[in-house]
Amino acid sequence: MAEQHDQGKEVIFPRGQKITSDHFIGQVWLARLVSGDDVFNCSIGNVTFEPGARNSWHKHPGGQILLVTGGLGCYQERGKPVQLLRPGDVVRIMPNIEHWHGASPDSWLSHLAISTCLDKGEVEWLEPVTDEAYRDAAS
Amino acid sequence: MAEQHDQGKEVIFPRGQKITSDHFIGQVWLARLVSGDDVFNCSIGNVTFEPGARNSWHKHPGGQILLVTGGLGCYQERGKPVQLLRPGDVVRIMPNIEHWHGASPDSWLSHLAISTCLDKGEVEWLEPVTDEAYRDAAS
Repeated sequence: MAEQHDQGKEVIFPRGQKITSDHFIGQVWLARLVSGDDVFNCSIGNVTFEPGARNSWHKHPGGQILLVTGGLGCYQERGKPVQLLRPGDVVRIMPNIEHWHGASPDSWLSHLAISTCLDKGEVEWLEPVTDEAYRDAAS
Repeated sequence: MAEQHDQGKEVIFPRGQKITSDHFIGQVWLARLVSGDDVFNCSIGNVTFEPGARNSWHKHPGGQILLVTGGLGCYQERGKPVQLLRPGDVVRIMPNIEHWHGASPDSWLSHLAISTCLDKGEVEWLEPVTDEAYRDAAS
């Protein structure tokens, strides 16, 4: 099935640890590939969402770049239509733009998340994407 | 053969255009995924080296991070032993450290190159890695 994501074949970077955080719905894993030290002024994580999993609305003072490495997912900025995420997609998230991202209802999603210009401040979390809003967005 | 890299299966990001530059030996392709604009203060390229291809010694005033996505390759810092590069490897290249990277003699290499802190200056190119030095390094 084209909608399925066989993690065994597509995952290049380690899956890491399950995230335990109120800012995520569903199971999500994070491997920290580059910590946010001051040498590079950025951090890099490999994030894997199970089908249906997503993060809450949030924004990054210094922006973030997503590089999709496997599966299928969703990305949405406040007031805009949802974008389908596919392997090879690059998402440039401008500073302080409210957005969320996550897996499609029927597929895993893996992406690299490169948080840039960390000296401008930490991620700011907002409200969750409710089941109803997610169903509407992902349909 | 474990040494071979089937590009068709492993490549996620576009291969881009052939690089025409005196700072590379062998065929190398570059797809610019994120240009070095001042919003993110970094650039991201997907770089693909044919077997035996490599860049010249060089250094980055703001550092660079390599994320290996396919194939096998080599990374060396001045005065240190060569490191074998495999999919999933992360290389943190400190600012102004002289180094080179490229494919193994018998395998393609694909990596993401994230050049950070671009406001600190542009890459500085040094001498090439001669055939003899490459053979010694890669053996």
